[in-house]
Amino acid sequence: MQYESVAQALEALDRTQKTEAAYNHAMGVLYLDAATAAPKGSYAGRGNTMEVLSGVIYDLSTSPERGALLSYLESHRQELAPVRIRQVEVIRKNYDRFQKIPAEEFVAYQVLLNNAGAVWEKAKNENDFPSFAPYLEKIVEYNRKFAGYFHPEMAPYDALLNEYEEGMNMVTLDTFFSRLRGTIVPLIEKISKKPPIDDSFLFRTYPVEQQRKFSDYLMKVIGLDRSYCGIAETEHPFTTNFNNKDVRITTHYYENSLASSMYSVIHEGGHALYELNAEDQYNATVLSGGVSMGIHESQSRFYENLIGRSRGFIHAIFPKMKSFFPEQLRDVDEEMFYRAVNKAQPSLIRTEADELTYALHVMVRYEIEKQLISGELAAKDVPGRWNELYQEYLGIEVPNDRMGCLQDSHWSGGSIGYFPSYALGSAYGVQMLRIMQQELGDIFADVTKGDLSGITGWLKEHIHRYASFKKPGELFEEACGRFDPKFYTDYLTEKFSELYHLD
Amino acid sequence: MQYESVAQALEALDRTQKTEAAYNHAMGVLYLDAATAAPKGSYAGRGNTMEVLSGVIYDLSTSPERGALLSYLESHRQELAPVRIRQVEVIRKNYDRFQKIPAEEFVAYQVLLNNAGAVWEKAKNENDFPSFAPYLEKIVEYNRKFAGYFHPEMAPYDALLNEYEEGMNMVTLDTFFSRLRGTIVPLIEKISKKPPIDDSFLFRTYPVEQQRKFSDYLMKVIGLDRSYCGIAETEHPFTTNFNNKDVRITTHYYENSLASSMYSVIHEGGHALYELNAEDQYNATVLSGGVSMGIHESQSRFYENLIGRSRGFIHAIFPKMKSFFPEQLRDVDEEMFYRAVNKAQPSLIRTEADELTYALHVMVRYEIEKQLISGELAAKDVPGRWNELYQEYLGIEVPNDRMGCLQDSHWSGGSIGYFPSYALGSAYGVQMLRIMQQELGDIFADVTKGDLSGITGWLKEHIHRYASFKKPGELFEEACGRFDPKFYTDYLTEKFSELYHLD
Repeated sequence: MQYESVAQALEALDRTQKTEAAYNHAMGVLYLDAATAAPKGSYAGRGNTMEVLSGVIYDLSTSPERGALLSYLESHRQELAPVRIRQVEVIRKNYDRFQKIPAEEFVAYQVLLNNAGAVWEKAKNENDFPSFAPYLEKIVEYNRKFAGYFHPEMAPYDALLNEYEEGMNMVTLDTFFSRLRGTIVPLIEKISKKPPIDDSFLFRTYPVEQQRKFSDYLMKVIGLDRSYCGIAETEHPFTTNFNNKDVRITTHYYENSLASSMYSVIHEGGHALYELNAEDQYNATVLSGGVSMGIHESQSRFYENLIGRSRGFIHAIFPKMKSFFPEQLRDVDEEMFYRAVNKAQPSLIRTEADELTYALHVMVRYEIEKQLISGELAAKDVPGRWNELYQEYLGIEVPNDRMGCLQDSHWSGGSIGYFPSYALGSAYGVQMLRIMQQELGDIFADVTKGDLSGITGWLKEHIHRYASFKKPGELFEEACGRFDPKFYTDYLTEKFSELYHLD
Repeated sequence: MQYESVAQALEALDRTQKTEAAYNHAMGVLYLDAATAAPKGSYAGRGNTMEVLSGVIYDLSTSPERGALLSYLESHRQELAPVRIRQVEVIRKNYDRFQKIPAEEFVAYQVLLNNAGAVWEKAKNENDFPSFAPYLEKIVEYNRKFAGYFHPEMAPYDALLNEYEEGMNMVTLDTFFSRLRGTIVPLIEKISKKPPIDDSFLFRTYPVEQQRKFSDYLMKVIGLDRSYCGIAETEHPFTTNFNNKDVRITTHYYENSLASSMYSVIHEGGHALYELNAEDQYNATVLSGGVSMGIHESQSRFYENLIGRSRGFIHAIFPKMKSFFPEQLRDVDEEMFYRAVNKAQPSLIRTEADELTYALHVMVRYEIEKQLISGELAAKDVPGRWNELYQEYLGIEVPNDRMGCLQDSHWSGGSIGYFPSYALGSAYGVQMLRIMQQELGDIFADVTKGDLSGITGWLKEHIHRYASFKKPGELFEEACGRFDPKFYTDYLTEKFSELYHLD
């Protein structure tokens, strides 16, 4: 179709974005339902529905009409407002991604991933990496090939990184991670020589019903408006958003652990604030939602670690927490609690790692991904390399692949290049905190009073409100200047030296 | 498009049904989410999504391709299996329904309903019927007109009844309701002279958390497989089904009422069993799901009243119930409990009515609908007629329209002809019970032991497994013979005469 005017083409652009948003909303609710409420045996019917809907989304986003619309708008770029230019850019990226992959490879890859998911799950349960290795090998091959389709001018792994964090590359990450390692590994070594922090009271019996009420309280403290933000229970906590007036966090309650759900609520709450504070104009467009995994994690880990594990925050919530759990915390004071939730200790499982050691888990995966994509490492040799790196970075022995290289679902789902964002987010967050402190002064004085409004206001102003309008690098630099990992390494050194009385 | 063979056309039939089922599944999950989990402020975004998806469903079900497919298959009717013939028949009915309404009337009606919903809600809250009257008047006009489009050969109200209960008409209902009135009204009069049953202990404090556990137990007793059936909480309980492996019931807990959620769980459980016991072959086709409101209510009210409020059932669950609520039921025995949950007393609100008086609430609405559609009654005169009828049938004064003719959402939603199914369902259920007893013998001996498998087995065999394959009248008659309201009136007379020691 030919458009008669830019106005007409923009109308078509709005329409197609609204339609795609509706399908994504429907898929999102189906996913949320599956993870929180659906009976276990209901997957087959949902599979059919997901298949139909994702087929429609695929057809929509690869249709010749969309191609024509993009071409028309690109040829009228100078007449478009910045928001429109960015919409066209993002839609073009998705369009090209599908166009560049030959249809038969796309289908074969989807089938592969579908099978790989089931094989990985079984392999993990049965601690049987060799059965998963051929699938991983093929997934790596496809990703290497796709990287070449997307960005033939880049190193393949850079092209993959770029999928999750526009503009990110190995040069930046190598520097970042090597500095990080240089800070964290010696810290861990020193800490290992100190007496361990007692966190045993965190594992007393905390009735789930009380934890639920505590979650409601925490959501209130961090400023989540329950008119627009729900909470549900699931196996592995996540946040999902349908628009800036409909965001859901999820958590998992363990009767014998207070901190697990407490910090998952604050972490997911950080994701949710990012989504809730986006401007209305981005709803039902491709610019809705946070711009990248790295920026998203910067927000979640900001609230979880920089705020949630600060002395000020513990001070603010401690009296209320004691009223929720008077028996369990009868012999615990603020400082004990602060120390317990900041205990650092090398461990095997990434998702359960503490603030200090977390990035090391990411680095192991980063090293392995680089080598897999470059061809230096074969899939079958992943366990050996994994175990070596855990020894080298964290100083611990990996007893089996189940608790080693089979622990994450990412690779079986085709996500290669995704892990680094987890560590980047932490570093971004610290730099934001420092810039914020330069601009706002003593923000922890407010935190100590339980008032996060200044902090969230700053993040809304500089980060949240833009949704996906600005690219991640641009967004970050305009708010915080050039990315410098030193903010993060200094933060870790300072915090953990004080905590463990290191010299 | 022309089809080359019946096989090819049937493939297209499967495809279009699968697609429509996927959209309905997505819409259903969005609805379920809205009613159970979504934050209050999230309606606007969901409205957009619903609009897009229902537009797609409308386009799909009125498309020229679908018309061509139906014509082709109808012209090859003799080559089709019975299931295919029925699929074509049901799809044709939906297709024609839309084709027969001029597009501009359809759109105007949707807009009207949309506004009427909001106006009704406000009118109800503010007890202001006059503000709603003009909307009701227009809704009645449209329904009268549509009735003529659908079935010009029928009386308009018959055509509307037929929309909800294929084959139902005023002749059948007039006889049914007049017999029912002739039984119930004198019973109520006699009961009013007897000492009231004490049900005060049902309104003690029953903690919600315990009620939740009690619901899990009840679901188990009535045989709901939790692998395929979920439970959620909502304002007004309902059941929804996506296929026969994914059914959800909902309930509402009131801390000061045990029976409310208890019987909503059993009622919705009856709906759920109907859906869960359907044969797999009907999934993702237009024949999935129960065939009519009347048959559906026959199942829900069967489990709720005929089983759930029987002495046998109370006997079976009473020990367990006492263990859930030892304090609250300390001075209560089985017989007291049985009597309390069967207490009959005229009241104002249909959804809270007891088993005996319930049908009278339906009759009031039936009379008014008949007169509205025939033109005998103007919308503005509904309150007067409503109050007269409540006086006449239930012997009570209606204090205001909020608790009177504004209480139900049905009319504002355009459902005229829907109410009778509620009463029909009760009568169908009793006839099923009697036929079942003729065939299986003393089924209450099993109920007394908490074993409902024989009963559910019979219903599965004769009702559930067919989903929407058989028309409601045909389904009922093949299972139970000709519909005879005497089963129901005899049941009520017997049960309430014994309960209240009437002569």
